[in-house]
Amino acid sequence: MSQEYDIVIIGGGPAGLSAGIYTARSRLKSLLIEKELIGGKIVNAELVENYPGFPQGINGYELTQLMHQQATRFGLKTVTGEVTALDVSGKQKIVKTSEGDFMARAIIVAGGSKEQTLGVPGEQEFTGRGVSYCATCDAALFAELPVVVVGGSNAALYDALQAAKFAASVVVIHRRQELRATRIVQEQAFAEPKIKFLWNTVVESIDGEDTVKSLKLRNVVTDEKFTQQVAGVFVAIGFNPNTTYLKGLLPLDEAGYVITNEKMETSVPGILAAGDIRSNSIRQVISAAGDGATAAIYAERYLTGSQ
Amino acid sequence: MSQEYDIVIIGGGPAGLSAGIYTARSRLKSLLIEKELIGGKIVNAELVENYPGFPQGINGYELTQLMHQQATRFGLKTVTGEVTALDVSGKQKIVKTSEGDFMARAIIVAGGSKEQTLGVPGEQEFTGRGVSYCATCDAALFAELPVVVVGGSNAALYDALQAAKFAASVVVIHRRQELRATRIVQEQAFAEPKIKFLWNTVVESIDGEDTVKSLKLRNVVTDEKFTQQVAGVFVAIGFNPNTTYLKGLLPLDEAGYVITNEKMETSVPGILAAGDIRSNSIRQVISAAGDGATAAIYAERYLTGSQ
Repeated sequence: MSQEYDIVIIGGGPAGLSAGIYTARSRLKSLLIEKELIGGKIVNAELVENYPGFPQGINGYELTQLMHQQATRFGLKTVTGEVTALDVSGKQKIVKTSEGDFMARAIIVAGGSKEQTLGVPGEQEFTGRGVSYCATCDAALFAELPVVVVGGSNAALYDALQAAKFAASVVVIHRRQELRATRIVQEQAFAEPKIKFLWNTVVESIDGEDTVKSLKLRNVVTDEKFTQQVAGVFVAIGFNPNTTYLKGLLPLDEAGYVITNEKMETSVPGILAAGDIRSNSIRQVISAAGDGATAAIYAERYLTGSQ
Repeated sequence: MSQEYDIVIIGGGPAGLSAGIYTARSRLKSLLIEKELIGGKIVNAELVENYPGFPQGINGYELTQLMHQQATRFGLKTVTGEVTALDVSGKQKIVKTSEGDFMARAIIVAGGSKEQTLGVPGEQEFTGRGVSYCATCDAALFAELPVVVVGGSNAALYDALQAAKFAASVVVIHRRQELRATRIVQEQAFAEPKIKFLWNTVVESIDGEDTVKSLKLRNVVTDEKFTQQVAGVFVAIGFNPNTTYLKGLLPLDEAGYVITNEKMETSVPGILAAGDIRSNSIRQVISAAGDGATAAIYAERYLTGSQ
């Protein structure tokens, strides 16, 4: 299967969907390729409070479904498949995927990022059997059980608050003495009686039988080692950009994110990037969607040669 | 009146409102200063079709009211006043306004842009009496009358389509032979039988008595001069950034727009910019709102010294 498009958009989160709304509405023949489900990571958010225009908040899955409806209404095509490589040597670029090759005059890279793992013994073994990267998905599985959340960011505390709705107790394990989370989120977590904190502490292993039973922990200041009995571990320590297939093709920053200018252009003409995959992205739905629109406009300017 | 804030946001359009949602939700003491009405230029848009999340579109005024409710709910304060100068020499920055001075630890400049005028005889005299910069506001005033739209952009053709709902006839006067507007908008305009085009043509004067009666026009290729009988003139030739008070303080591009990096930072620490006032902004609600969120996050990082 080889098909020709004006624009191929890689990734079906808010950045890609917004780009698709703009390119399709501008009557560019547009294809969006998403390897899993439309919506990206935000589909796991029960309530997105800070997407401008929804004063009472909106469910993350619902928001991205609305965006996809909107893009589809304007003519965006969507395929489910995984991008394996790009060939950008010619004017007609080739997007190689599990579903075959697609030809594109311009490409918008909006593949987001994936969860970072702890990399400790037991983590992989117990994933889905006590270890989770999505409290919104899995918190209800740990009703009346003790859980931990690993991390110190907003995302970690949101996970802790979510887990506290169900769990018997929630311990936030953070390797530093201070949280990175914004004040309002910290205050919410500190005000929740079920949530306690273990500072300067790292996870050394995750142990259990069929499911997680305990963690081996270490205080990085005193070097003291100790064990914490838990049934669930929510890992919330960040994300890695989905840029493996872009290495050597596009300039990436030290963490592997795509470097762009404020027009969302990369250094390769006709290849733009938008959303969480970008260096310095703030990883918010609104900024990803803004990026997507900007990438779409400048992709069209690239195509029409009007830039 | 002198008051101290963590963040002062200048401008109450989508960029400023989105910034306010983010800074207020992050419990930063936040003030938004708007010189006219909340919402910016988009309040004149009957239907915003491309703001992601509203598949059927949403009225521009309504959308910005929702954003303002959301920001206010999180604690954003709003004052009506005009910013006249910034003093950014100290760590505590001073925003001088018609309502007195406000102290800010960081400033987000989001004042948008204002309509560009033709600069021809009669234009100012007949503004509000036949000359309009807002077809959404004024098209209904010209029911069954002949009107023109000056310009070749998307905005000009949207104005022409809007005017065609009411007017007897619409002539688009464009100084070039090709439109800058995107294809889908061009196709809509070409498909509308009321809309005709005058290419390579400029307006030399706007004439009338109590109200506009005619235009003197000139073909820039043949130099032929001729008169067009009209009752209304919609001027849609672009915008100028509201950056007068920023000259000498911030680097501006040749058209006067604020230069930022992709974090929305200007070259002055603690001064960020968002939305249509920025160089290379695509002048869309979604990108302005994305800019605002990004500026808010990086303003907070500036304040906490965590950048």
